[in-house]
Amino acid sequence: MFMFEKPLGMVDTLPKLYEVKKKTRNEMTNEIEGWGFEFIETPTLEYYETVGVQSAILDQQLFKLLDQQGHTLVLRPDMTAPIARVAASKLFNNLYPQRLAYSANVFRAQQHEGGRPAEFEQVGVELIGDGTSSADAEVIALMVSVLRKAGLNNFKIAIGHIGYANALFKEVLGNQERADVLRRFLYEKNYVGYREHVKSLPLSSIDKERLFTLLTLRGGIEKVNEAKELVTSQEALSSLEEITQIWSALEAYQVTDYLKLDLNIVSHMSYYTGVLFEVYADNVGFPIGSGGRYDHLFEKFNRAAPATGFGLHLDRLIEALNVTEEATLQCVIYSQERRAEAIIYATELRQSNKRVVMQDITGIKDVDAYTKKFEEVSYFIGSRKEEL
Amino acid sequence: MFMFEKPLGMVDTLPKLYEVKKKTRNEMTNEIEGWGFEFIETPTLEYYETVGVQSAILDQQLFKLLDQQGHTLVLRPDMTAPIARVAASKLFNNLYPQRLAYSANVFRAQQHEGGRPAEFEQVGVELIGDGTSSADAEVIALMVSVLRKAGLNNFKIAIGHIGYANALFKEVLGNQERADVLRRFLYEKNYVGYREHVKSLPLSSIDKERLFTLLTLRGGIEKVNEAKELVTSQEALSSLEEITQIWSALEAYQVTDYLKLDLNIVSHMSYYTGVLFEVYADNVGFPIGSGGRYDHLFEKFNRAAPATGFGLHLDRLIEALNVTEEATLQCVIYSQERRAEAIIYATELRQSNKRVVMQDITGIKDVDAYTKKFEEVSYFIGSRKEEL
Repeated sequence: MFMFEKPLGMVDTLPKLYEVKKKTRNEMTNEIEGWGFEFIETPTLEYYETVGVQSAILDQQLFKLLDQQGHTLVLRPDMTAPIARVAASKLFNNLYPQRLAYSANVFRAQQHEGGRPAEFEQVGVELIGDGTSSADAEVIALMVSVLRKAGLNNFKIAIGHIGYANALFKEVLGNQERADVLRRFLYEKNYVGYREHVKSLPLSSIDKERLFTLLTLRGGIEKVNEAKELVTSQEALSSLEEITQIWSALEAYQVTDYLKLDLNIVSHMSYYTGVLFEVYADNVGFPIGSGGRYDHLFEKFNRAAPATGFGLHLDRLIEALNVTEEATLQCVIYSQERRAEAIIYATELRQSNKRVVMQDITGIKDVDAYTKKFEEVSYFIGSRKEEL
Repeated sequence: MFMFEKPLGMVDTLPKLYEVKKKTRNEMTNEIEGWGFEFIETPTLEYYETVGVQSAILDQQLFKLLDQQGHTLVLRPDMTAPIARVAASKLFNNLYPQRLAYSANVFRAQQHEGGRPAEFEQVGVELIGDGTSSADAEVIALMVSVLRKAGLNNFKIAIGHIGYANALFKEVLGNQERADVLRRFLYEKNYVGYREHVKSLPLSSIDKERLFTLLTLRGGIEKVNEAKELVTSQEALSSLEEITQIWSALEAYQVTDYLKLDLNIVSHMSYYTGVLFEVYADNVGFPIGSGGRYDHLFEKFNRAAPATGFGLHLDRLIEALNVTEEATLQCVIYSQERRAEAIIYATELRQSNKRVVMQDITGIKDVDAYTKKFEEVSYFIGSRKEEL
């Protein structure tokens, strides 16, 4: 029976949750606008050849279709690639740095019933054309500010740097395939698998210890000192220097209480090129947001530029907020002969921002049952004299 | 060269237009909420078997794809069928009448370059479970109120009734196929074709005259009297009685200045079952909205109920408004040693609802060129003493 079914991973948002989402989204977008980021909207459908291929999302998670000209289209799996397309074309004449933002649904095909949502809303920003650590600090500080404006207080941002693990792996393992195996364990947050795999490698016990120690590099900014002792390459040391600079900028923003260092983060297998971060709320199992520096995406749209940004997962944020927001409704029940009076009454209430249903009594089957859901009910029924 | 291309009929919404759309949408949705309609959101993708088949949109205009289970999915072509699905399932326990609303993008595949948009936003309402003319009047009055709140004043709503033309055709032509041919001419607003076709029919000159006269039944509510003289069947006369009742209710709402009668309207080939209407703004070629009564859709979701509603085409409405809304931005340019000062300054401005970009000077190539776009620029650069 197909009548009421929805495709796998698709959900309806009913009035109560809609209200919470709307209110939360407004708080978030107002704050983002306050920081001078400009919102844009891009199409739900994009060419596979442009946005689909450049996206950080796995091919098997793309919703694909053919258009009437035979081109492959995708439902946008993220907003970063579409924004890069726009920044590199329509907004080509705008000078960098450019601050863009979005609030949009993205799509990821799911394999199993009861799994993750196949369509969900992201609110995020991209700061394009600024390679300084100030830009990274700004997007992280903005993210903190946005989360607090949304009403979230108990959250932590784990900050890492893709360059550090890459450099350590290069120093210890020498070759890229071996590094990829370990990177994948980190990406999957499978630390047991990582340890087992390290044990099996033909390395000196000192080198194995260096790889084990990587897993302990989480905590306050002081962990940077331990991290320094583990490496010798310039690449690794610059990564740590960058994180230190960003952290110090974030002290000026007074948001370091929300931060922790985590040099194990690998948010995507290949995408981020510098600092990267994930946001966790106390009571939600998945990150409610993530972001980082991606300096190679714009080359693919013929306009090389450094870039950094974040994306927040609105539904998970709302799960973390755990609030319910229900609008109270009033009701004016009328009979046709007193419609004009009822309209005047309802209009006045609406002008003072009340939500007022006007209902012809002949359109209701059971008045008592119908009126239960309203906070207040007024009747304009029968001749005026009877009422008085 | 595919790099910057978008699929046929797909558009980007850049910051200026985004700002106008957001402001207009907010005015509209606030008014709709004020009338006690509750917003819901439904998925972008639906099963073809449920929403696709029940939609009023032609099959060739549907974007279709296969999911990983082999089911055919569609990108929702309108919101009425998805809302009917939700009202008949998830909201089954809510008592009728039920007032639901939406603000959502819908999708219609296009055949030609430079044609209509393939994705566009509709803002609309559905009043479900109330068959009275009060319900029809309410949605029309609400639509007027929404358009005025959006800032539109020079518009007309053409109101007709599908039952009138249907009854007249039945009286004159007798059979359904002949009626369909004429209905299609009206649907396409091809009045020359209609006249030519009527001329070619084997009818008495009196009957031909009746069909010609139908085309003149546009104007004030007094045209109802001319319309009465053209028909004898109860069906036709009840249609006119219904319109008269709705018009009289709309007098109580004081919105009849925006109305005109038009007994030629056929908004869809088969969908509406009673009163139906189209909204026209002075300077836009297509209707900016439409709606009407559709009493048979809910049967298809196993919960028979009368229903009436409207949908407004946000982009066309904005075209009619012809406004531009540009947010003014301020800029704070800083060097790292004075970052903390710059943050305090920017935070204060933001608290008084200014939009403020903070920019590290080392992230800008050409300061003069970069700062041109801002209304006001403040500098926190160099040591504090030099500034003083």
